[in-house]
Amino acid sequence: MGIFKFMTPEIIFGTNALSQIGESLLRLGAKKVFVVSDKGVLNSGWVELAVRYLKDCKLDYCLWTELTSNPKDYEVEKGVRTYVESGCNSVVGIGGGSAIDAAKSVALLATNSGTIQQYEGVDLVTRPLPPMVMVPTTAGSGSEVSQFSIIRNSKHKVKMTIISKSLIPDIAIIDPQTLMTKDARLTAHTGMDVLSHAIESYISLAATPMTEGYSLQAIRLVANYLRPSVASQHNREAKEAMAMASLQAGIAFSNSILGAVHAMSHQLGGLLDLPHGEVNSILLPYVLEYNLISCPEKFKNISEAFGENVEGLSLTAAARKAIGAVKELAGDLGISDSLSGLNLKEEQIDFMSHNAVHDACMTTNPRDMKVSDVKMLFRHALGSDI
Amino acid sequence: MGIFKFMTPEIIFGTNALSQIGESLLRLGAKKVFVVSDKGVLNSGWVELAVRYLKDCKLDYCLWTELTSNPKDYEVEKGVRTYVESGCNSVVGIGGGSAIDAAKSVALLATNSGTIQQYEGVDLVTRPLPPMVMVPTTAGSGSEVSQFSIIRNSKHKVKMTIISKSLIPDIAIIDPQTLMTKDARLTAHTGMDVLSHAIESYISLAATPMTEGYSLQAIRLVANYLRPSVASQHNREAKEAMAMASLQAGIAFSNSILGAVHAMSHQLGGLLDLPHGEVNSILLPYVLEYNLISCPEKFKNISEAFGENVEGLSLTAAARKAIGAVKELAGDLGISDSLSGLNLKEEQIDFMSHNAVHDACMTTNPRDMKVSDVKMLFRHALGSDI
Ligand SMILES: [Fe+2]
Ligand SMILES: [Fe+2]
Repeated sequence: MGIFKFMTPEIIFGTNALSQIGESLLRLGAKKVFVVSDKGVLNSGWVELAVRYLKDCKLDYCLWTELTSNPKDYEVEKGVRTYVESGCNSVVGIGGGSAIDAAKSVALLATNSGTIQQYEGVDLVTRPLPPMVMVPTTAGSGSEVSQFSIIRNSKHKVKMTIISKSLIPDIAIIDPQTLMTKDARLTAHTGMDVLSHAIESYISLAATPMTEGYSLQAIRLVANYLRPSVASQHNREAKEAMAMASLQAGIAFSNSILGAVHAMSHQLGGLLDLPHGEVNSILLPYVLEYNLISCPEKFKNISEAFGENVEGLSLTAAARKAIGAVKELAGDLGISDSLSGLNLKEEQIDFMSHNAVHDACMTTNPRDMKVSDVKMLFRHALGSDI
Repeated sequence: MGIFKFMTPEIIFGTNALSQIGESLLRLGAKKVFVVSDKGVLNSGWVELAVRYLKDCKLDYCLWTELTSNPKDYEVEKGVRTYVESGCNSVVGIGGGSAIDAAKSVALLATNSGTIQQYEGVDLVTRPLPPMVMVPTTAGSGSEVSQFSIIRNSKHKVKMTIISKSLIPDIAIIDPQTLMTKDARLTAHTGMDVLSHAIESYISLAATPMTEGYSLQAIRLVANYLRPSVASQHNREAKEAMAMASLQAGIAFSNSILGAVHAMSHQLGGLLDLPHGEVNSILLPYVLEYNLISCPEKFKNISEAFGENVEGLSLTAAARKAIGAVKELAGDLGISDSLSGLNLKEEQIDFMSHNAVHDACMTTNPRDMKVSDVKMLFRHALGSDI
């Protein structure tokens, strides 16, 4: 084994954990807090509650919600200007991956010069960021614990993956109650994103004994609790389990990176602004089929984490059950098994495939991928591969 | 589930990880480094190597080795004076639990006023500590990742348990090669300490899904690799596995605290200066026997982690196999199953039992313990309970 690193923020998890946001920020030296969120989350009431806790701690704040899903470079730039003008010295993100990724990139540019484009890639951040506390309200992107921020390059229509230890927030506050205001569709999509994180981090070439246990545990939780979580907004046990799954998968992928599913879905998000979780869910079985030969033992463990009976099966047959289990779950949640409904055109595949092989997530995919392999997988997923 | 917190240092793990000590300290703003170690480790050559890496990074340093095992309050006080006089602004600990605990307590008093006795208990540290990088050379105390520092109160002859998030080092550098200079006896004792951490953290009342997987994985690694690690100084695979076991058990217990084994062994260490790992190994089966009724399901999982066949057994019988497995392991390593050889006198049991119920580790033991229960267990372990 070579040298590996492992890092997580401080984590505060549990019902009413949100109530600790004020004192968490005080501990980090915050005076005025830049609160990043989006309009959907505003309606849910969680931002209002968080702001009340900030006021209880005599913290000043500036609320900024001028972002969209798959947050754009120009949104981040506007955010930084508002941050500077408002005299904030700390950042909070409340919401899904979009709000938290935007908050992290605003924090990045608050202390590092230039444009967000300059930081695309690995370890290009040189100066420490202001204190950051993140509160996910979806389970979820895992961004609250990860060293990733994904921002859409509006000019080139690609998603930029920015990876840096500096992007790991100081404190992640995970309150499963916040999941009770998500609708079924968003719950299904973000839940399949969690599954993609868990599986891709587990079979990643950079997986370690520090991450593999969390990956498998996250798969087990998704297998058991995503269906009931989609079924009811009020099932506390399921929300708590999905919050934990999202957290553990997030820690795993932040430290072992992801794979081809994310490298490819970043292109669809970049080019067509499609929902990240839904696209991952569609791509996952196709990519797994391709990756199967790289690590059948691990695939078998995934099958078992799904509760599949693999007794008496050959290794390959046991491994393949993992793919069936993923498809069955997506089907039960009513998610499509094809990209064909998503406004993607055959002629865009070339552009996306060339970009996908250069995505930072591709380096840890367990099976090598050339541009032609990515094209073939996009075509499979589009149903145009007869 | 209530609110829980989870925290680890940044971890750098692997063969030659030690080579990263200089740049790790630079990253934390170190200029002059207070290097804490003990004479045994000095002879092994690892301090020399570490110092060479510091020099490569143009870091100044002051080497301090005036400590003994079960480090004493007056040693820490001397260390702080030397730290201040030498103008250091950062702390490194290289060695076993004694060196690292002493380094952490020196760091504590470097920025917090008063005596180390004032900080006994939970969360009494108010000011941030200087940057700390810890390099364990035993597997091990887990102190390199934990929020604990255990210092002997020389006047009252008790061990003080100091618990604070501030005591979590910034970076833990774990190089399995450092384990190849440990003799068989020390390897056996520290390995059984790892097992105590893994089991006590797993059955702790404060265990969470963030710690339980690490605890179980550490038990599995100890079950498979402690014997070969004791058998040979040169078995790289076994050293790497034990380094990982120590790390995972350390993260688990730092976040879920320990139990009665440690609450009791702290008394033996405090009163008689006995080796921590050896005493834990002796106490562990007696305490487990007492704790069995609190969580038989978890005991059954421990049995399975040891590779015991529990098929067809009743839950209690399956649970009890865990205790047999612990005894068998200690026996194979030539560790005594009784305190009778350790210079402990029947009349000292009263004093120790009264102190044990107030030890911070006792609060998370899964079965309630009165002074009379602790006395009974000490007598059992001494073989005086006919
Ligand atoms: Fe994702
Ligand atoms: Fe210990």
